[in-house]
Amino acid sequence: MSSFSFELVYQSKKSRARVGRISTPHGIIDTPNFVAVGTNAAIKAVDATTLDEVGLQLVFCNTYHLLVQPGSKIIEDAGGLHRFMNRQGPIITDSGGFQIFSLLYGGVTEELKSKGGSKREGMVVKLSEEGALFRSYKDGAKILLTPESSMRAQKALGADLIVAFDELPPYHFTPSQLEASLARTHRWEKRSLDEHSKDPRGQALYAVVHGGIDKLMRKKSADYLRELNFEGYAVGGSLGKNRDEMIEMLSYLMPHLPQDKPNHLLGIADLPSLDALIHLGIDTFDSSYPTKAARHGLLFTFDGDVRIMNAKNRSCYEPIEEGCDCFTCKNHTRAYLHHLFKAHELLAYTLTSIHNLRFMVRKMAHFRSQILRDEI
Amino acid sequence: MSSFSFELVYQSKKSRARVGRISTPHGIIDTPNFVAVGTNAAIKAVDATTLDEVGLQLVFCNTYHLLVQPGSKIIEDAGGLHRFMNRQGPIITDSGGFQIFSLLYGGVTEELKSKGGSKREGMVVKLSEEGALFRSYKDGAKILLTPESSMRAQKALGADLIVAFDELPPYHFTPSQLEASLARTHRWEKRSLDEHSKDPRGQALYAVVHGGIDKLMRKKSADYLRELNFEGYAVGGSLGKNRDEMIEMLSYLMPHLPQDKPNHLLGIADLPSLDALIHLGIDTFDSSYPTKAARHGLLFTFDGDVRIMNAKNRSCYEPIEEGCDCFTCKNHTRAYLHHLFKAHELLAYTLTSIHNLRFMVRKMAHFRSQILRDEI
Repeated sequence: MSSFSFELVYQSKKSRARVGRISTPHGIIDTPNFVAVGTNAAIKAVDATTLDEVGLQLVFCNTYHLLVQPGSKIIEDAGGLHRFMNRQGPIITDSGGFQIFSLLYGGVTEELKSKGGSKREGMVVKLSEEGALFRSYKDGAKILLTPESSMRAQKALGADLIVAFDELPPYHFTPSQLEASLARTHRWEKRSLDEHSKDPRGQALYAVVHGGIDKLMRKKSADYLRELNFEGYAVGGSLGKNRDEMIEMLSYLMPHLPQDKPNHLLGIADLPSLDALIHLGIDTFDSSYPTKAARHGLLFTFDGDVRIMNAKNRSCYEPIEEGCDCFTCKNHTRAYLHHLFKAHELLAYTLTSIHNLRFMVRKMAHFRSQILRDEI
Repeated sequence: MSSFSFELVYQSKKSRARVGRISTPHGIIDTPNFVAVGTNAAIKAVDATTLDEVGLQLVFCNTYHLLVQPGSKIIEDAGGLHRFMNRQGPIITDSGGFQIFSLLYGGVTEELKSKGGSKREGMVVKLSEEGALFRSYKDGAKILLTPESSMRAQKALGADLIVAFDELPPYHFTPSQLEASLARTHRWEKRSLDEHSKDPRGQALYAVVHGGIDKLMRKKSADYLRELNFEGYAVGGSLGKNRDEMIEMLSYLMPHLPQDKPNHLLGIADLPSLDALIHLGIDTFDSSYPTKAARHGLLFTFDGDVRIMNAKNRSCYEPIEEGCDCFTCKNHTRAYLHHLFKAHELLAYTLTSIHNLRFMVRKMAHFRSQILRDEI
């Protein structure tokens, strides 16, 4: 079992972009790379063996969801998340904080639409310096999530990469609220690191840089967390109310993150964002968007998106993308996929998810080769 | 491309059961065998390539559904059903009659519950000697299904085995109504054979023996259809209001079917029925039950059914069935499948369907070896 390390393979002469290699106990992650989201210990409609064939090097599972169903003990008793879901390659879990605070405050989109998270506030029973007490959406049981219990849960799950427990401040926080939230997040991340250090088990702990949409607080967060010497650095929380604001914030922030550690961007990997951000030197990007888009019939190609439900695909006997080497493109036509969607066949979701995931693998390999040629 | 033939491999000394081999342009079907139902040119949640791995030798597609979506022209232009769904092995299609008359009369279960098919009668616009005019449930377009148009549709689809157009008489028919229905079914089947014979295309046409729950009419049907010299003989329509009545009817009827031709039982392949009927010499059985059961978490094993949602499977780290060689049993535990069902993950349906289909393949192989040893 090899331990965690991050190796710089090539630094672009043109930008901050770099090609790297993260080593974990379950294998290598070539960077920059895409991280598929398998919230419930399963990528929706795709088996773990298929993920290997697709070439996906890192899968993201959500601690909050797994605590609620099936509970960390079931997975620990199975021998950990890898054995539970039969995943051979690397896995990353988050702290559970994101979901808790999404429940409490709602997401930024909902906030901007003034929907807030009020109707779900009852799910979070108590928020204090210790952590957050919430109710399971499954059976109403109370679950306490603290930096320490999040670390213990993530150790029970046994992912290769784990994430410090943080508070996700809502977009609408005032500067003083944001400052208080950031201070508490830092205390929680320090407690996460202390708990983790007692029993590292070969897992690598990532910090989460916060500070909302305030550049100085973002820098302050990066500076503080750098000193604590985590093994990786993720960027979390709201980065603005649209893509342009996000790009501006990350262009400012990324140079303040440790360059000798892998950098991760939480929850963002749509194609326009990737194209806009890849030069900043971010190493890994996770998102459920490629599989969600697939289940809605939106398929990715190097020539732009294909809407499989478009009438012209009804009688198109070509693959989704000429030259794609995925299982779906090698075996099936757009006409068949169009039919499967029309007929509401579950098989549609599996086949299109495989294509979009393989596209992401090919897209990231393409980015790496561009970086190696100083084209990015 | 080999043509259709049926070869007797072994006749049991103990019963009418026999081991046989049906040759088709797309390969061999060892008999007796189970036929999986892929109504919309897809087994629900399972890709055609996976079916090959499972060892399924024959797949049943429904002409009625395919006429409505995507329409026979789309499939013909794809190069036929095999290329459309990427199925290498043999396929059988039905005539469309069953669904039309199920819409008109309702199924036997609904009839016995006095629900009839009245609410759906509007779907069948006109029933006459020529055939049945019905409305597409998709877009309301009128579609005329006659013996000739059913044959032409099935030739466009291009399955290896096709089925004559018949009327499905409802359970409540009076003897005189049943007799009139049988006479018309026979005229329709003769017209099907005449249309088929103009352009056989290497397809084998199966007759459907009718006569409802009247033994003499069943015999009359078998005698009449035998003379027309179809390439296979299926048993269709209501065989009674419960399994015992069905077994009694088939015990009486099967000896009247041609023994030198393959015999098929339409729509029945649940395990108790198979165990009760296998000695009668029926060669193929189709049913959607194994995949439907799988999607409801009812899993087959040689030691009896497993209800995966049962609480004891929550922490059972064993495969569904010890010794099963299916993909699911080789890679996943009951605990994981239990979790996937609880989390409503689509992957659950794929994995359990694979197991139940593989079980059916193993079960039928077991029957064949029992017949070869004169144990059945």
